[in-house]
Amino acid sequence: METPLINQLGVVKRNIVRADAAARDRLAQFGSATIHEAMGRVGLMKPYMRPIHAGSHACGTAVTVLLQPGDNWMMHVAAEQIRPGDIVIAAVTAECSDGYFGDLLATSFKARGAQGLVIDGGVRDVKELGAMGFPVWSKAISAKGTIKATLGSVNIPVICAGALVNPGDVVVADDDGIVVVPAAIAAQVADAAQKREALETDKRARLAAGVLGLDMYQMREPLAKAGLRYID
Amino acid sequence: METPLINQLGVVKRNIVRADAAARDRLAQFGSATIHEAMGRVGLMKPYMRPIHAGSHACGTAVTVLLQPGDNWMMHVAAEQIRPGDIVIAAVTAECSDGYFGDLLATSFKARGAQGLVIDGGVRDVKELGAMGFPVWSKAISAKGTIKATLGSVNIPVICAGALVNPGDVVVADDDGIVVVPAAIAAQVADAAQKREALETDKRARLAAGVLGLDMYQMREPLAKAGLRYID
Amino acid sequence: METPLINQLGVVKRNIVRADAAARDRLAQFGSATIHEAMGRVGLMKPYMRPIHAGSHACGTAVTVLLQPGDNWMMHVAAEQIRPGDIVIAAVTAECSDGYFGDLLATSFKARGAQGLVIDGGVRDVKELGAMGFPVWSKAISAKGTIKATLGSVNIPVICAGALVNPGDVVVADDDGIVVVPAAIAAQVADAAQKREALETDKRARLAAGVLGLDMYQMREPLAKAGLRYID
Amino acid sequence: METPLINQLGVVKRNIVRADAAARDRLAQFGSATIHEAMGRVGLMKPYMRPIHAGSHACGTAVTVLLQPGDNWMMHVAAEQIRPGDIVIAAVTAECSDGYFGDLLATSFKARGAQGLVIDGGVRDVKELGAMGFPVWSKAISAKGTIKATLGSVNIPVICAGALVNPGDVVVADDDGIVVVPAAIAAQVADAAQKREALETDKRARLAAGVLGLDMYQMREPLAKAGLRYID
Amino acid sequence: METPLINQLGVVKRNIVRADAAARDRLAQFGSATIHEAMGRVGLMKPYMRPIHAGSHACGTAVTVLLQPGDNWMMHVAAEQIRPGDIVIAAVTAECSDGYFGDLLATSFKARGAQGLVIDGGVRDVKELGAMGFPVWSKAISAKGTIKATLGSVNIPVICAGALVNPGDVVVADDDGIVVVPAAIAAQVADAAQKREALETDKRARLAAGVLGLDMYQMREPLAKAGLRYID
Amino acid sequence: METPLINQLGVVKRNIVRADAAARDRLAQFGSATIHEAMGRVGLMKPYMRPIHAGSHACGTAVTVLLQPGDNWMMHVAAEQIRPGDIVIAAVTAECSDGYFGDLLATSFKARGAQGLVIDGGVRDVKELGAMGFPVWSKAISAKGTIKATLGSVNIPVICAGALVNPGDVVVADDDGIVVVPAAIAAQVADAAQKREALETDKRARLAAGVLGLDMYQMREPLAKAGLRYID
Repeated sequence: METPLINQLGVVKRNIVRADAAARDRLAQFGSATIHEAMGRVGLMKPYMRPIHAGSHACGTAVTVLLQPGDNWMMHVAAEQIRPGDIVIAAVTAECSDGYFGDLLATSFKARGAQGLVIDGGVRDVKELGAMGFPVWSKAISAKGTIKATLGSVNIPVICAGALVNPGDVVVADDDGIVVVPAAIAAQVADAAQKREALETDKRARLAAGVLGLDMYQMREPLAKAGLRYID
Repeated sequence: METPLINQLGVVKRNIVRADAAARDRLAQFGSATIHEAMGRVGLMKPYMRPIHAGSHACGTAVTVLLQPGDNWMMHVAAEQIRPGDIVIAAVTAECSDGYFGDLLATSFKARGAQGLVIDGGVRDVKELGAMGFPVWSKAISAKGTIKATLGSVNIPVICAGALVNPGDVVVADDDGIVVVPAAIAAQVADAAQKREALETDKRARLAAGVLGLDMYQMREPLAKAGLRYID
Repeated sequence: METPLINQLGVVKRNIVRADAAARDRLAQFGSATIHEAMGRVGLMKPYMRPIHAGSHACGTAVTVLLQPGDNWMMHVAAEQIRPGDIVIAAVTAECSDGYFGDLLATSFKARGAQGLVIDGGVRDVKELGAMGFPVWSKAISAKGTIKATLGSVNIPVICAGALVNPGDVVVADDDGIVVVPAAIAAQVADAAQKREALETDKRARLAAGVLGLDMYQMREPLAKAGLRYID
Repeated sequence: METPLINQLGVVKRNIVRADAAARDRLAQFGSATIHEAMGRVGLMKPYMRPIHAGSHACGTAVTVLLQPGDNWMMHVAAEQIRPGDIVIAAVTAECSDGYFGDLLATSFKARGAQGLVIDGGVRDVKELGAMGFPVWSKAISAKGTIKATLGSVNIPVICAGALVNPGDVVVADDDGIVVVPAAIAAQVADAAQKREALETDKRARLAAGVLGLDMYQMREPLAKAGLRYID
Repeated sequence: METPLINQLGVVKRNIVRADAAARDRLAQFGSATIHEAMGRVGLMKPYMRPIHAGSHACGTAVTVLLQPGDNWMMHVAAEQIRPGDIVIAAVTAECSDGYFGDLLATSFKARGAQGLVIDGGVRDVKELGAMGFPVWSKAISAKGTIKATLGSVNIPVICAGALVNPGDVVVADDDGIVVVPAAIAAQVADAAQKREALETDKRARLAAGVLGLDMYQMREPLAKAGLRYID
Repeated sequence: METPLINQLGVVKRNIVRADAAARDRLAQFGSATIHEAMGRVGLMKPYMRPIHAGSHACGTAVTVLLQPGDNWMMHVAAEQIRPGDIVIAAVTAECSDGYFGDLLATSFKARGAQGLVIDGGVRDVKELGAMGFPVWSKAISAKGTIKATLGSVNIPVICAGALVNPGDVVVADDDGIVVVPAAIAAQVADAAQKREALETDKRARLAAGVLGLDMYQMREPLAKAGLRYID
């Protein structure tokens, strides 16, 4: 079976390889900033993506959707591919702020076990989504609905908000942003995130006690070497 | 008396025909997305307009204001034209983010019975407006005040955030956006919105029970006809 | 010792003249809009700067930082210069939305007595910063971290979000925006703000009682002179 | 026959009342800035609209088109409604930068006698359009093509880039922007533009000779009254 | 040897598989819009990317560069990897408008045989680049230079302006935009583009002769079926 | 006489200290990028400022103007303060894209000896300005005119597009951007620019001959130290 191209239209892939569930659940304990650092500072979507409700957090294995501008037909096709623990990642082939998603689709996605939605477009029914506790990250909020007339794809690799997402990758989203962890390295990234977090707890305590980063990180010498001048 | 042009300067119309109050009150029960659909998918302002406080909702008959950049003189002229149940819709002749509205004007508008403000510009005193419970949708928030030196107009047709608003039209605003219902069709749109909402309640229940949109909306055949391919 | 140029790189000024603490504390009682008006309508940063948590308020004497794009080394240098009652004002030499600041630096800044941070760039650890009660105003939120490789400066004059900030100036930030009060006129601006606020209390009461601004400000005659026409 | 709503979908109006051809031809001699002033400073589209080639100029009677995002089906419907001397004004129901128009449609529009295109969306084949001498004003340039699947409308009132355009209105576009002159007042606006231009020729000569605007417009006294202070 | 991750830092791949030169040269004859259509409507970068000089055209095999914000060190590393017929595609790990490229680097790239540069950031020396005839597509123009302090990568897969580019892919850029053709399908896409262009020549002639698209594409029946109403 | 605050309203300073004319004329020979580097990488306005005609170049001593949104009254006040060799730098107290400047003012400015205009707002009469050969850099182009009703200032320090400009400073503008050289260091910056340019001529020749920057700048060792890995 041929591999679909990025953004190829008219294809639904049914059997995707999801990241290991245990690794996904471990990643769920970390923030997007920590995971991004643990991966070697890669994997983030662009910062224009924002949670529609402050304090949102989600982690899941990606079911990807490629939408056409102003058309959410593929969201219904995607619903059938969702399994418990998935998160839906929706890309659009053009910049279009329409509201592709609202409380009806959220009801369906939730019933299928989705952990949330990340969409490089608009959503609506913001209040209802908040009441349902279904977390959403989007580029826009718009009451304008969409039609169901043109094919996109489901579960092909997509570029969403500047990040490549393969179906099955782990996606972690919170107030700081959205990070994509390739399925193959999910466990290894969880390990690195855990180490990083342990180190930070110790640093936080020292900084709270008044130790300066200048001393804790031994920056005084490199700063002087770089030529920093103190004046009075 | 001649009809003012859209955006004509220097005119205040006193006797405007407001939409039927009963229709307005029925429209107040629906969200902007539902009303927009009920109208045949028209009437929305652009999605850059946002409530300054999440969870805001307002519905009223429009008193329109046309402002000049950096000048809020006409807001005071508009205050006198407000009647209980109105909502003020302010357009600006240029893109200018100044804060044209704050808690003093809000106190006055509220005393006159205004339900809220929609302004294609900036506002300030955000915290105070929240404490007063006066809902505002705007393009920007800015502490920068304005002057009172140049004439605009009140109660002429204006284009606000991409939508035409005639004085007396019903405007409904919430977290999803802002929709304008022409006065002449307010009752008819309320009927359509009610029907739509009734249908959605039923759909929501079925989707929550796990029925797929693919089946509920009978999409499988048209998708196949359009050429959607499932691969493994 | 020579005066550093605006945005000059590689300099840390240790002994800065802070605005009078009493004047700073009086300014802390007013909002940014009131202070901006009291200064003769000057001193505001651009409205794209927003608090990362609604309802934030901070007032302090400025410790300024000039950062290079994607590099937060100077934040650590700045920490050492913070004294209780200061607020950190960070400019970046280019538009870059990276997250220059997170909960570790906030812990250190707070331990030094900082009242908050204003940064013309991005920040991360939004939830943690909220939990700590450390107020931040920024241009962006981004999980993307920064490196520590290139020199900027501390306590030189900087232009942050369109406003000149000299170290020691008083900066007041709230939901409406951010205003910079030159140290030399802090007391005088506090006086003017107090007078303005007293006047507003009276006006608010009259407007709440239904008096129109048209009458309270005696606008009817100048409006007629400017040519405003009332039609029916 | 009922009047279509602004942005109503699925309607083509065949018999529209075009502005008087003589008035249109007189308006063709003036720039958009002059006409906007002559109309009382109204009627301009937003400044984000730009000619795709510098030095473009067009004037015609409006054939309006309402497009759906990512769909240019209605452009073909519009072609049939074009008469010599028309200009096509295309609005889109959502913000979407796709390329709705290229050299094939331009060939057809030109064969029908169109003077140019104004579109609140994207276009492509920029080089070919330049070679053909077919002037276009747009919001974006994009190689991305569109589909032909959903109905919009032709010759209904539309809001394009913030301006209301009724079919048959005169639209003048140049390097400075795009102005819409309602058909009913086209002759009267042409008169006013002519007067304004005559006045400007005289003023230009005096300013070139070194006369100051301060004296020519007698501004010194009002400036002094407004409180302008000269210092040394 | 392991495959580098997208956006992985600190790696230079020397031996990349370039698309077939004959296929590349055939693709050079087509515009970006035609190639995008020939590929099934995929592969375009975002429309914010613009040529710094109108009328630019370039086609080459991609040498990719990943830059850090405000740092162009890797551009020098990339120069060594350029072979005649290549085009350099530069991504930046953050949105930063600095001028990463000017006439000195262009001199070096040109000496190595580069056909042009596509950069998701800023460039400078615009006039000199025009005089040299070295075509550049960028997101911004900025006189602000960059430093050489932090590692990025060369010849790894990058996401540039929303498109995935693998080293060796063919990239075609012109006034309409930038399209990426995966190396493996370059010949096949050239075939499809040629067929498409042949068809268009015929269509253009018929449209120029006054045939309507409505008839040429047999749209009247589907439009009627979709419900289009003609009114008078 | 007291020093005006930045952005203080209602003041015209007549006797300003202009940078040395010889230094200004020497700076006129360099591009904005070279001067910015020669100053230690400071002094640039933001890159959203663009010449309205490609290929523009201007250098002059700054006459500064502070405008209110939608009001160009102070431009006429500024005209009187222009001396041959000056360049006008106009800031606006708010973001407002109106056209504050057109061919009449340009005629007056030119008659007074102005070298050009830099304005953090909009301009109009683009074609006429090109024909006159009067260079302009602006944030926007807009046919919308302004009023003459509110006071700004002339020849006070202003912040224009993110850069502080004191009256009398040298401003150099070209296709790459706009750089501000404080009057006191104009000669010294001209010296540094000259040195820099001499060095670049030599480097250009070597790069054109095929020498790599990697070798010319001796980057191979620091790259290896930083950890750059070459793979095959």
